[in-house]
Amino acid sequence: MNASKEFGMREGERAVELPATPDAGVYFIGRIQTPWKNRKDCPKNARGSDAVCTVELDPRYQDGLKDVETCSHLVLLYWMDKAPRHLVLQVPGHLGAPHGTFALRSPARPNPIAMSVVKLLGVAGNKLSVIGLDCLDGTPLIDIKPYFASTDCVPDAVVGWHRRKS
Amino acid sequence: MNASKEFGMREGERAVELPATPDAGVYFIGRIQTPWKNRKDCPKNARGSDAVCTVELDPRYQDGLKDVETCSHLVLLYWMDKAPRHLVLQVPGHLGAPHGTFALRSPARPNPIAMSVVKLLGVAGNKLSVIGLDCLDGTPLIDIKPYFASTDCVPDAVVGWHRRKS
Repeated sequence: MNASKEFGMREGERAVELPATPDAGVYFIGRIQTPWKNRKDCPKNARGSDAVCTVELDPRYQDGLKDVETCSHLVLLYWMDKAPRHLVLQVPGHLGAPHGTFALRSPARPNPIAMSVVKLLGVAGNKLSVIGLDCLDGTPLIDIKPYFASTDCVPDAVVGWHRRKS
Repeated sequence: MNASKEFGMREGERAVELPATPDAGVYFIGRIQTPWKNRKDCPKNARGSDAVCTVELDPRYQDGLKDVETCSHLVLLYWMDKAPRHLVLQVPGHLGAPHGTFALRSPARPNPIAMSVVKLLGVAGNKLSVIGLDCLDGTPLIDIKPYFASTDCVPDAVVGWHRRKS
């Protein structure tokens, strides 16, 4: 897969040489079913759509869902397997200037792990119905966590560079 | 390393056989310096301490920090490399009854990736000073993301099983 070909490389972007070997391995524990088959169809962010998506967990891990149905919201981690991993400066298409990868939620990052907070509609067997995703259909799932408002919610958080753009 | 020996296995817990090989690889992009050298010293959760911790990014990725200093809060992902990965039902020591791994924030999970929302105090070179961590000193860092209140903050989120315990 030539990921960088699909994503291209814009003026002002910068790439680094990645280590020769990874330090640890992740298991894909399921897949996420969404309505979006191509990158251009995906919402710009996770609040850009009310589409109901389905998280299908590998049945091997199904016992791990006990009590998940009592959660109103979940944190999902998933693997953006189409994204290049070597960019440290990126120019998002709708923003026009380079930003550091770690100041962006772009899928292109050394470890292409996306984090989304989703609303849980229901659990049936090994399938979860959720709202609040923006990823491609078939994206590999790597974790499900309960969302705790006490530790995860910061209403007055600010992303300064982004606020100045909008 | 016999991780399950340190963590033990309590009555009511259940383990699964993991896949023979991982599906993807992660790079450790830095290390987190905290005051806690042993598990028993770590705070129970990320709001359990106001200790200032240092995130030291591999200099290779330092350009990726551009504009991070304008963020009041960050999402950190890190690798809980001491945790067993095969538990699907767990009995947290202070709770007493088994819960599904995906209803817990325990480090023991198929992909031992922790997510914490931290307050950023400052950036100096490749080092970030933050408040809001509860992990062991030397924990490998795998990602830094800007925290957007618009998508990441859900003040009325509920973890039902946990509320009933407290």
